[in-house]
Amino acid sequence: MSDTNVIQGVLAAALTPMNTDLSPDLGAMITHFKWLLERGCDGIGVLGTTGEANSFSVEERLEIIYAVGNSDLPSSKLMIGTGTCAEPDTLRLSRAALSAGVKTVLMLPPFYYKGITDEGLANAFARVIEGIGDDDLKVVLYHFPKMTGVPITAGAIELLLKDYPNVVVGLKDSSGDLDNMTSLLATFPGFGVYSGTERYLLPILQAGGPGCISASANVTSAMAQEVYQAFRTGTSNAEELQERLTAVRQVFDGLPLIGALKEAVANVTGRNGWRALRPPLTLLDAVQSEKLRESLDQVGFSVKATA
Amino acid sequence: MSDTNVIQGVLAAALTPMNTDLSPDLGAMITHFKWLLERGCDGIGVLGTTGEANSFSVEERLEIIYAVGNSDLPSSKLMIGTGTCAEPDTLRLSRAALSAGVKTVLMLPPFYYKGITDEGLANAFARVIEGIGDDDLKVVLYHFPKMTGVPITAGAIELLLKDYPNVVVGLKDSSGDLDNMTSLLATFPGFGVYSGTERYLLPILQAGGPGCISASANVTSAMAQEVYQAFRTGTSNAEELQERLTAVRQVFDGLPLIGALKEAVANVTGRNGWRALRPPLTLLDAVQSEKLRESLDQVGFSVKATA
Repeated sequence: MSDTNVIQGVLAAALTPMNTDLSPDLGAMITHFKWLLERGCDGIGVLGTTGEANSFSVEERLEIIYAVGNSDLPSSKLMIGTGTCAEPDTLRLSRAALSAGVKTVLMLPPFYYKGITDEGLANAFARVIEGIGDDDLKVVLYHFPKMTGVPITAGAIELLLKDYPNVVVGLKDSSGDLDNMTSLLATFPGFGVYSGTERYLLPILQAGGPGCISASANVTSAMAQEVYQAFRTGTSNAEELQERLTAVRQVFDGLPLIGALKEAVANVTGRNGWRALRPPLTLLDAVQSEKLRESLDQVGFSVKATA
Repeated sequence: MSDTNVIQGVLAAALTPMNTDLSPDLGAMITHFKWLLERGCDGIGVLGTTGEANSFSVEERLEIIYAVGNSDLPSSKLMIGTGTCAEPDTLRLSRAALSAGVKTVLMLPPFYYKGITDEGLANAFARVIEGIGDDDLKVVLYHFPKMTGVPITAGAIELLLKDYPNVVVGLKDSSGDLDNMTSLLATFPGFGVYSGTERYLLPILQAGGPGCISASANVTSAMAQEVYQAFRTGTSNAEELQERLTAVRQVFDGLPLIGALKEAVANVTGRNGWRALRPPLTLLDAVQSEKLRESLDQVGFSVKATA
């Protein structure tokens, strides 16, 4: 079992609903987060890749953090994305998260410059941790090499765990490479490595990880929670439940993921306002939307029926 | 000859000097820009990749833009990098550049999300252009696929030139792929495609491009200007001068480029303060610094001697 410093189980990397002018719809956002917690999520990742964090200005992200802080959401179940390319922006967002009562931040590396050294990467995180200077802070590193081009290497993790063992508590691994996840869990005992996809929920739990933080859990959280409970209670059908979950997850393959998830949630909730996202991302076209509905039906996952 | 909407000749993607606390050293920065203009530069790219723009917060970048606006630098020779991941931040920086009297902005695409469509990319730029809504604006697109993972495709350029032919005036091509540069020049007549390296200065001029915008021109600008003049006046030694310039540029291959350039400028100017940059980037170690000095000497480019 992973370190209890990190949230255990199924976490959704939550979508951010938008108004028609593409500003964040803060009311609908809080409603969505609560809906996810009622629908099988053990935790919520706010302002991650799926939440289009990087398309919001620092000020807009602060507004989102304040809205979370002013809500009655359970802060112990939240994780806020605060990593940016620029140290002062990362500091500002991380301090705001702590002020909002959320101790766990999910931190991207500074992701513009590529080909950096382990020392350079560890130093960038160390400066932020020192700059925040708050003993309550818990950092989950965010490894998403396909999106950032800046992998969180084992070498950088080793340097950080040496200096900040009580702060750097885990990593979200969105590489899709299960071997990397299990290797990190074996190398760094107690370090909470989440799978970035619910496709590997059962394998990561079996390897001692805390669970998953997944984009598609905006839709599949109830099914993912069944897998988590089967694992926890040791019931025999865990593998079967994982296979069903994986089949649903695969429906999104080949579609623009965030647009497809917003389309699926629009279907579930009947709220057309979900069909809004910021460029450069794009919504599904009519053909893709119809195909998505059919595919979800085919795998026995009628989003409307389970709403 | 390229469209005269864009600055012609040799442009340096200028380094940003820093104070010991890694804040931008605004005074030394203006001094450096003037030094570059005295030393063969026809123009200066402010807040580009080499200027570590992406490691500065939006507020810090605004301070840099204000400092430029308040200086006596010739604004017609300046280009300011304003592209970020988030539309509101890009708008804010671009408006500030125009307010500072600088009409030409060098615009990165929103570079976090990968695998986006031509339409999504063009739409992101279009929203910024519409949002700025200033007829004086000139946009040079910034194509740096190795760093951004978001190439500026011919398809996206075509869409933008259709709607904004008087705004979208050029592109900085930092792909290192000369075929891409000449192909874009052939496809879009009058569109100002700069080489992102002075290695291809003569070829890009011969293909009808406006010149280069280069990191290493912080050091090599005087030599690059000789190539430009040889091309303009049709002197016979242009190829030879380009070969010498290329040899000097190659000295930086295999070194962390921005750290190496800061080291070289520290040597030229005798100002130790140049040896400061923001993580995740790293300075040269002693061995690399010594190797750089030796290599520059070997190609007949003694930085100290030409200071």
